[in-house]
Amino acid sequence: MSITKQQVIERFLPDTPLPGTTADAFAPSNIALCKYWGKRDAELNLPINASLSVSLGELGSRTSITPVDADSDQVFLNGELLAADSSFARKVIRFVDLFRRDLRQPLSIRTENNIPTAAGLASSASGFAALMLALDQFYQLGLEPARLSAFARMGSGSASRSIFDGFVEWHKGSREDGMDSCAERLDIEWPGFRIGLLKVATGVKKVDSRSGMQRTVESAALYASWPQQAGRDLATIKRALADRDFELLGATAEQNALSMHATMIASWPPLLYWQPESVAAMHRVWELRSLGVEVYLTMDAGPNLKLLYQTADEAAVLDAFPELSDLDLVAPFG
Amino acid sequence: MSITKQQVIERFLPDTPLPGTTADAFAPSNIALCKYWGKRDAELNLPINASLSVSLGELGSRTSITPVDADSDQVFLNGELLAADSSFARKVIRFVDLFRRDLRQPLSIRTENNIPTAAGLASSASGFAALMLALDQFYQLGLEPARLSAFARMGSGSASRSIFDGFVEWHKGSREDGMDSCAERLDIEWPGFRIGLLKVATGVKKVDSRSGMQRTVESAALYASWPQQAGRDLATIKRALADRDFELLGATAEQNALSMHATMIASWPPLLYWQPESVAAMHRVWELRSLGVEVYLTMDAGPNLKLLYQTADEAAVLDAFPELSDLDLVAPFG
Repeated sequence: MSITKQQVIERFLPDTPLPGTTADAFAPSNIALCKYWGKRDAELNLPINASLSVSLGELGSRTSITPVDADSDQVFLNGELLAADSSFARKVIRFVDLFRRDLRQPLSIRTENNIPTAAGLASSASGFAALMLALDQFYQLGLEPARLSAFARMGSGSASRSIFDGFVEWHKGSREDGMDSCAERLDIEWPGFRIGLLKVATGVKKVDSRSGMQRTVESAALYASWPQQAGRDLATIKRALADRDFELLGATAEQNALSMHATMIASWPPLLYWQPESVAAMHRVWELRSLGVEVYLTMDAGPNLKLLYQTADEAAVLDAFPELSDLDLVAPFG
Repeated sequence: MSITKQQVIERFLPDTPLPGTTADAFAPSNIALCKYWGKRDAELNLPINASLSVSLGELGSRTSITPVDADSDQVFLNGELLAADSSFARKVIRFVDLFRRDLRQPLSIRTENNIPTAAGLASSASGFAALMLALDQFYQLGLEPARLSAFARMGSGSASRSIFDGFVEWHKGSREDGMDSCAERLDIEWPGFRIGLLKVATGVKKVDSRSGMQRTVESAALYASWPQQAGRDLATIKRALADRDFELLGATAEQNALSMHATMIASWPPLLYWQPESVAAMHRVWELRSLGVEVYLTMDAGPNLKLLYQTADEAAVLDAFPELSDLDLVAPFG
């Protein structure tokens, strides 16, 4: 039996003064260039492999916490009060409860996502990171970034990376309590780096990442080779970032993402997040690249693509993907 | 440097009488339930893993050989005389040359494929098997089936399996000359076993299997786990065949095929044989299965699907895939 979240938090949480009266925090979404796929501990969200992402600047989640004069907690998402038994509200309250000091004081917790809905991005990473940052403020915990990252990870694995801006590495760690499984910002700026959020399918029923990972680890023989590949890819991507070698970066990120999807496809029952439109868009990316445009793709546990390119190629990318609007183009370094 | 085809053949070919005057042989197409993917010897087409297929009864290739009064060999495909420098004619002549006794006697070699063009099946397996059988007749070699299979393999790997009817296992073998890398028919009849040839895309440029395998073996880290998986899948499929356990057979064959595609997808550059229509059809198969119909899919190095089911489910399969015509339905055991 592994350690529980509550045990870890109590061990590392400082003695604190009384809660403040308000908190308001923002955390960016992030897109992994070297993917997180597979847990070695499902309770603490400890990963089998290290990963590396880029945060999406001003796209993400803002969360505020205030005491509220009510019978119970109130959870708002994008301005709407959620039913207490909704999946989102229960996840939020369960996480807040890990840090709650005064059990009698109901809280109002408001989350606003400014990620364009059309982008099809998961919001759990930025959501749990923003919630963790808000809890740190509200309870005046004064936690250092690595601790915030490790705690956010217990809400959603990739939230560990959304504590930081820019390029971020999430160390897999080896401690049983997971406190060394936290992210850190890499000291790299790349102003010309661009991401295009290509939404190709909507309203598709999907298997959530948590279940998907578990199925892959348990049933895909090919997964055995994944941790080693991810380790190599991470090292290659860090070298490519240091050298500003976009071709190496893009190729490694694309092969890493496709290899992750390959482990899903090799699972049983088969786990294919791709829709026909995904495959059409993938072939379009490869066609564009064959014409000399340096554009690469990455994909998460869903049908949509994220295009990686540099400013010099933006016109060509927009020409080939006219469905990309200004809102879908992300400049992580402003 | 490995042994050449010519060296192997000369070592194992009996001293023969003069050529006869005519030969006419048929070999069936086959569809692998446990796939062949990866060569340990590219000259002799020796596989990294053993495989298992089902032959398609009367669907296949018929090849005849006769001496011809002409300046050079004549190669016909489906009634049409091919240019001597066409890819098909060159492959045929190169293979015939390995066995040719009288270099001054030009030959007419006619191949007819009765596989419906719409089925999108590769014809190299049945084509080289039929050619080998015709050469055996023409030169009165009197080779036993295992030898015919090993020699046909040198034309095209999967041709080793097309020498036989029914369920066929291709042993990977371990000899340097490959003569133990030959197929054998399994002593199993399954009259209710059906295959639906679902052609979903036409005219797609594709990477041939030979290059595809090579790219996968050289660039896909996930390929490292493939040989072991294929070994396990083969054993499971043989057990399922012995027990007439269709669910185990179908599930194992489908996961095996998808795992093979997964190794391609994890290659660099990415090797995705699927088209949007492939993915749409895959989701349709899974939807149908979720409704209780025992139908499974397998796919080779192309965009098309082969559906595996039993007679009891044929009506439901045809209902869900109305594009299947009578010509696309194969009853391997008549």
